Amino acid sequence: MLIITDPAQMAEQCAAWRQAGQSVALVPTMGFFHQGHESLMQAARKNAAKVVLSLFVNPTQFAPTEDLAAYPRDMERDKLIAEGNGVDVLFAPTPELMYPQGYDTWTQVPGLSRLLCGKTRPTHFKGVCTVVLKLFNITRPDLAFFGQKDWQQLAIIRRMAGDLNLGVKVEGVPIVREADGLAMSSRNSYLGEAERTQAPQIHKGLTLARQLFAAGETRSSVLRKRISEFWQEKLPLGRVDYLELVHPETLKAEKTATPESLVITAVYLGKARLIDNQILG
Amino acid sequence: MLIITDPAQMAEQCAAWRQAGQSVALVPTMGFFHQGHESLMQAARKNAAKVVLSLFVNPTQFAPTEDLAAYPRDMERDKLIAEGNGVDVLFAPTPELMYPQGYDTWTQVPGLSRLLCGKTRPTHFKGVCTVVLKLFNITRPDLAFFGQKDWQQLAIIRRMAGDLNLGVKVEGVPIVREADGLAMSSRNSYLGEAERTQAPQIHKGLTLARQLFAAGETRSSVLRKRISEFWQEKLPLGRVDYLELVHPETLKAEKTATPESLVITAVYLGKARLIDNQILG
Repeated sequence: MLIITDPAQMAEQCAAWRQAGQSVALVPTMGFFHQGHESLMQAARKNAAKVVLSLFVNPTQFAPTEDLAAYPRDMERDKLIAEGNGVDVLFAPTPELMYPQGYDTWTQVPGLSRLLCGKTRPTHFKGVCTVVLKLFNITRPDLAFFGQKDWQQLAIIRRMAGDLNLGVKVEGVPIVREADGLAMSSRNSYLGEAERTQAPQIHKGLTLARQLFAAGETRSSVLRKRISEFWQEKLPLGRVDYLELVHPETLKAEKTATPESLVITAVYLGKARLIDNQILG
Repeated sequence: MLIITDPAQMAEQCAAWRQAGQSVALVPTMGFFHQGHESLMQAARKNAAKVVLSLFVNPTQFAPTEDLAAYPRDMERDKLIAEGNGVDVLFAPTPELMYPQGYDTWTQVPGLSRLLCGKTRPTHFKGVCTVVLKLFNITRPDLAFFGQKDWQQLAIIRRMAGDLNLGVKVEGVPIVREADGLAMSSRNSYLGEAERTQAPQIHKGLTLARQLFAAGETRSSVLRKRISEFWQEKLPLGRVDYLELVHPETLKAEKTATPESLVITAVYLGKARLIDNQILG
């Protein structure tokens, strides 16, 4: 496995592969890999001749009050995991190489970015779009893989890729969960013992909505109320940031649930802010 | 010369050329060609195997109060001129193909876009950046050619191309002028007879600054005052939007002129808003 830190060298490597007719898949990450990341690497490995895994804790998607400095890192372990999953290049640029002196260009998808996570993280998706666009331009991948845990991010990146004629196929990969149902996340490392014990209730609440929907309940207000009551009992350490039932692409709130509807949430739990989602049908 | 209206077909054509090892130059325009456009086509022709000329009156760079509907158009004449200058493909998409239903992605260079023209056209460069980025992504050119008349636009596109790792060489082509010195512009067609007679004084005023600088005057305030006085006498129909002496890349106002300094202006004349600029040294 090659390790590249210079964007220009990364671009050259991908251009050489393209010239040789080899397809390229990109997996953009912020590192501290868990099995969710590994499933992205494996999907990429299966679908392209060359796999580029980017590892960059992108400062521009963190607000000044957020956890940029605390964000967990373990480069040596990450290298082994990447190599073990057949990654061809680990692309790990520094912030100075990605945002040199005088950097001044920003891309955003304002409509989708104002909703859900955008309400408490109003600048987050501007940073995400900008860095992903840069990574797309550096590697010009045929395919790019993102986790469905960050469903809003996936919807926004898809919109951006289509709107900007990027010619990349943006693939969503299903959430990987711990045995008890908690969606895997680098931020789970922030959880204390009691918080970790309650954390799986986030997923169980969303699953309750699936069950109620399967039993015939389609009123969004009722579904959300039942999840909230469930969490009040089972997740007392949690503080709900939002809990919505939305269209899976437009992310607009829906009053009446359909099988395609997405139930999506963000919950503060101790120092962590955890997100999760589930399609109802 | 091929005429292509579909972005996907345009992307395919450029991909085929790239695969065959042929370099591609892009010349983005809004049509109604004059010799300034022709000099861009000729520069592109000289420097690349294949020349794509885009012709798209981009609605998103016009404010609702501006001249989108009135913007001059002459497709049949433009085709002949493009063909005569050795263009390989005229890419003329419709607004519906460039901005389909639900379009929601925007790119900007906020620092540079707030200055100069950005003061009276606060959303203009966001539209320019977005459409140029789309055109770059569709054609993925090795080179792109822009006129130096739109100096601020050129500086912004250069910044964007570097910041977003686009890997395109952005080339500026010198202003082409009428015999009397007026910078060629599609918007010159808006001028009435008296306005047209006075319009060359815009350039003469900037040239006066060059002469004063050559004679030793480096105070920006004095240079601007002398131009203003000159225009008060010679350009009574004009209303100055701005007149600045700036650094050619950062576009920041400079108190003391150097040979690299740029004197740059926008002047309302009848229905037209005309821009011009000149390097002092």
